[in-house]
Amino acid sequence: MNTGCEIINVRLNDAGDAVVIIDQSLLPNETRYLTLRGAGELYEAIAELRVRGAPAIGIFAAYALYVLAAGSAATRYDEFYDELLKNKAYLDSSRPTAVNLRKMLDRMEALARSMSSESVPRIIEAMRREADAIYDEDVAMCRAISEYGLTLVRPGDGILTHCNAGPLATSRYGTGLGAILLAKERGIELRAYCDETRPLLQGARLTTFELYKAGVDTTLICDNMASIVMREGKINACFVGCDRVAANGDAANKIGTSGVAILAKHYGIPFYVFCPSSTIDPNCATGGDIEIEQRAPDEIKEKFFIKPSALPEVKCYNPAFDVTDNALITAIITERGICRAPYAESFAELGLLV
Amino acid sequence: MNTGCEIINVRLNDAGDAVVIIDQSLLPNETRYLTLRGAGELYEAIAELRVRGAPAIGIFAAYALYVLAAGSAATRYDEFYDELLKNKAYLDSSRPTAVNLRKMLDRMEALARSMSSESVPRIIEAMRREADAIYDEDVAMCRAISEYGLTLVRPGDGILTHCNAGPLATSRYGTGLGAILLAKERGIELRAYCDETRPLLQGARLTTFELYKAGVDTTLICDNMASIVMREGKINACFVGCDRVAANGDAANKIGTSGVAILAKHYGIPFYVFCPSSTIDPNCATGGDIEIEQRAPDEIKEKFFIKPSALPEVKCYNPAFDVTDNALITAIITERGICRAPYAESFAELGLLV
Repeated sequence: MNTGCEIINVRLNDAGDAVVIIDQSLLPNETRYLTLRGAGELYEAIAELRVRGAPAIGIFAAYALYVLAAGSAATRYDEFYDELLKNKAYLDSSRPTAVNLRKMLDRMEALARSMSSESVPRIIEAMRREADAIYDEDVAMCRAISEYGLTLVRPGDGILTHCNAGPLATSRYGTGLGAILLAKERGIELRAYCDETRPLLQGARLTTFELYKAGVDTTLICDNMASIVMREGKINACFVGCDRVAANGDAANKIGTSGVAILAKHYGIPFYVFCPSSTIDPNCATGGDIEIEQRAPDEIKEKFFIKPSALPEVKCYNPAFDVTDNALITAIITERGICRAPYAESFAELGLLV
Repeated sequence: MNTGCEIINVRLNDAGDAVVIIDQSLLPNETRYLTLRGAGELYEAIAELRVRGAPAIGIFAAYALYVLAAGSAATRYDEFYDELLKNKAYLDSSRPTAVNLRKMLDRMEALARSMSSESVPRIIEAMRREADAIYDEDVAMCRAISEYGLTLVRPGDGILTHCNAGPLATSRYGTGLGAILLAKERGIELRAYCDETRPLLQGARLTTFELYKAGVDTTLICDNMASIVMREGKINACFVGCDRVAANGDAANKIGTSGVAILAKHYGIPFYVFCPSSTIDPNCATGGDIEIEQRAPDEIKEKFFIKPSALPEVKCYNPAFDVTDNALITAIITERGICRAPYAESFAELGLLV
């Protein structure tokens, strides 16, 4: 039977000497698992987006550093630690802007450093437990977010999704998709409508894959069909993930999210943002402070297409994210609880602005 | 110098014995003109969407019927008329749902029938004048719409477009794009932002081609970027065409149009619909009476893509049009004038509901 947990994105193999991942760069056309041992292939998996999504990259990096440490020939601590620092720097350079990658590598290194008086085998053992803990913490966080999310739906509800915030980007469940997958596990049937999410099609390639594989009633639409499915009464709520939340509740997420929120408001449909509480940035006062990454025109005109969709001379504007005003957000769901406007107060009540 | 009139979509060749078209099925990657004489190739041009857009198909059919008549070996009227009926039925079957195709073929046939006592050469001569008249009437109508549209913009304005309502779909100027092209002819610089318009990408493939070729400052965006360009102050007005307008002003147009209108309302940006007055259907009370065509899933998942964007088993919902509520439309611009809410009254004032 399909359940929300079928896709295990990153794990250690049974022998404990390799990291196993699903190669996301081949999805949805090919489901291939890779067993990775060497530093070069571990690096390449991150750099080539075979593993993606901030939490998933963090978990992968922790296991990767453990696997490399476990394979070390070093017997003395200083030798072992030197090697670990080299491996850490190498893995860290695979995706320079991935904050979570650095954070989890730092955490693994700090553990090893704190054990400098212990034997190398004991350090390696502890590193494995630490990587497992990073994984388990992410599962627990996603599950907590999903449990809160589950209180927001009723059986038979239609849920509109935008981009991808599912298990492929995390450990299990995901954030934005977690409640839908948890509902499925508990026998509650929901209907998912997934925006394909141009230009990179994460909604089509990843979200419909995850939901379909979990047995959820899944329908793919183009981004510009969100209005008609809302108008036709097919949608009871919108579920999206989030990259960064300002202290006032403004939320930056994949391009097009703000448009979905405006449509939802127009049609009187609740719009929910799901994220770990660590996504809320107390140093960012409003969405106006969030810089929007601009990406290359070829993503719009060429990537994925058999032939370019427009003349080479035609300019493209390709922002990767947009900011959704807090006034358009019905609630922000974290592992600590459900926050509602006014968000600064709601965040403070849950102790999230420290 | 580029002007809005550079693209001549359908015309008779100099010898007057063939129809010349730009092959729209190859745009924007190849600009190929076709010179068509035989019934088979004229039929094929419509069936294979080498010529598309209701007005353009009507003009093409009129010239096609003339070219076939001019090539006739018949000397007696009854023989000539029989042949004409056969050619008409053949051309008419090329695209069964194209209302304008049938209408213009009927008009050409009625002319020939009304001249049954005249010589075949005189009928052929009159048919050429009639086809020219159909062309000229469309140019005049598009120009009138564009002149009214021009009163709605100021130099430097940013205009958001959705789908394609330009010269490729008509004779010259187009409807939704006409004001932008006419502005360019008069030295008024506007900035166009064009929604790519998934799933069939008419905005990317055709609209940016037309505007760029006319020398207009043209930027391609994905449909889900309409919200951010509005939010960033880049857009002063939205210009769209229209397939059918109900008596209360509700307007059916390419899928995604209603979403653009809702965003425009949210950001306080005027939203204009451009159409020939013949598009207003007095027998259709509201948008609820307009049936929405559902199209095949492969348009979303496969067409244009190197590899499918989702699993074959994933369902798609693919409506070709949506309906924009009259309350979201700032004005409807026809060749007879600019209509504003309440639309029933405004249409009646211009004599458009008869």
